[in-house]
Amino acid sequence: MVDVDGGARGGRFLASICGGGPLYGTGVELEPIGTMRTCFPEKFGIPRQSGLVPLARGVLRFADTQPAAVWRDALRGLEGFSHAWVTFVFHEAVAEGWKALVRPPRLGGKEKMGVWATRSPHRPNFLGLSLLEIEAVDGEMPAIRFRGVDLLDGTPVVDLRPYHPEHDFPRGATRDGWIAGAPEPAAAVAWSEAALRDLPGAVTRTPVGMPGYAEAEARSLVEALVALDPRPAHQRGQSGEWAMRLLGFDVKIRMEGARATVVALT
Amino acid sequence: MVDVDGGARGGRFLASICGGGPLYGTGVELEPIGTMRTCFPEKFGIPRQSGLVPLARGVLRFADTQPAAVWRDALRGLEGFSHAWVTFVFHEAVAEGWKALVRPPRLGGKEKMGVWATRSPHRPNFLGLSLLEIEAVDGEMPAIRFRGVDLLDGTPVVDLRPYHPEHDFPRGATRDGWIAGAPEPAAAVAWSEAALRDLPGAVTRTPVGMPGYAEAEARSLVEALVALDPRPAHQRGQSGEWAMRLLGFDVKIRMEGARATVVALT
Repeated sequence: MVDVDGGARGGRFLASICGGGPLYGTGVELEPIGTMRTCFPEKFGIPRQSGLVPLARGVLRFADTQPAAVWRDALRGLEGFSHAWVTFVFHEAVAEGWKALVRPPRLGGKEKMGVWATRSPHRPNFLGLSLLEIEAVDGEMPAIRFRGVDLLDGTPVVDLRPYHPEHDFPRGATRDGWIAGAPEPAAAVAWSEAALRDLPGAVTRTPVGMPGYAEAEARSLVEALVALDPRPAHQRGQSGEWAMRLLGFDVKIRMEGARATVVALT
Repeated sequence: MVDVDGGARGGRFLASICGGGPLYGTGVELEPIGTMRTCFPEKFGIPRQSGLVPLARGVLRFADTQPAAVWRDALRGLEGFSHAWVTFVFHEAVAEGWKALVRPPRLGGKEKMGVWATRSPHRPNFLGLSLLEIEAVDGEMPAIRFRGVDLLDGTPVVDLRPYHPEHDFPRGATRDGWIAGAPEPAAAVAWSEAALRDLPGAVTRTPVGMPGYAEAEARSLVEALVALDPRPAHQRGQSGEWAMRLLGFDVKIRMEGARATVVALT
């Protein structure tokens, strides 16, 4: 149902799916407005917050639940903004359920916090929220290219709004709870000769639809991700080898203390 | 299903409600984690963004879908933060549907913008997002008292996370699109003698469960709300009288140009 304003009557109501009757909940079933393709085909190695790695790219393509013309209208004016809040579903967490108490990686996985004091994916309603930089709005597709993403490839996106500098910022001082005393881990990154030789071939294996990377960009991306120390919280400080899937290749890293070497791209 | 960590297997799945079969959407039906009682029983006069009126109070009470002990665990550590992002459902917009193009009040209701470039309630999935100041976390109820709310009384809340000063802020300069050239309206506020006499009686009529206000606080709240010029965008600049419902009383205001008089509290 598209009305004269180019709008659409929306939201799918459980009553109409299930045949009516009183229902708990809000009556709103989340329907993706689109899917985000990102450089991260697997969870391991994704930055723990948005904005940490500007070169981490994502492309939001809108769903075919609406004609492209409706999405094009819905985008009007967004190109004037540099940043947007993207609300998405932690779709890989849904089947696992949620927990009231979680162990934040920043606390080394040792201490428990309430889920409302964290950004754990295992939360009621499984909603995620990321502040992303808008690289470009493609009115033709339509699609939006983002930078600084921390989303798994294929993430369903359910809402989008511009960053509002007057209102999206606390007035007065903030208190930052447990995160204030828990710095992000960091690692120094070196490359092996072999990994540098692997780079040109690895970049060409990017699956169709994923964001594209030039060779130098892919090198910077790998470096920035490894510098965040992707080791699971409980393995932090351990020496050994880890592999992170990125675009169409595996990044093999060897870690000793806070020093990382990119060993190979396979 | 509460597990040993005090967590709960969560999310209601359409498959289990509807008897299975493939479904569109995310399979996540939004279930309220609680309901926000606020000082705003009606839409008219609610500040257009969170944080504009610090004295605008809200109390989030958690739903009885989980034992109080589970919600208490889920809150652990939140008391250390000064601000939280609250995700909610624009429940009064759901039945009206959404539109791809909207007329933002800040543009005087004359110009159309795409819904993704705005915070219109009439958006796909009907999700709202407000940055609110945490006044107190009440572990006993459990409940959370907020300041600076812009939510209708009775709003279903679906997610909650602390404001994170390192990541919830754009790195580098921002571009602020159409809002940059569209300042918020403002009005100068005076009180009639009659309205001042009405104040003590009006405050005592606050319905049970709504946030409480001392007389002086209620006076400051009324003043701050009227100063935002609550007139609908297309009536801005018109002279006349408007009434705004607040707590348990009506605020009657007369406006001439950008000057407002609080005429009576009835």
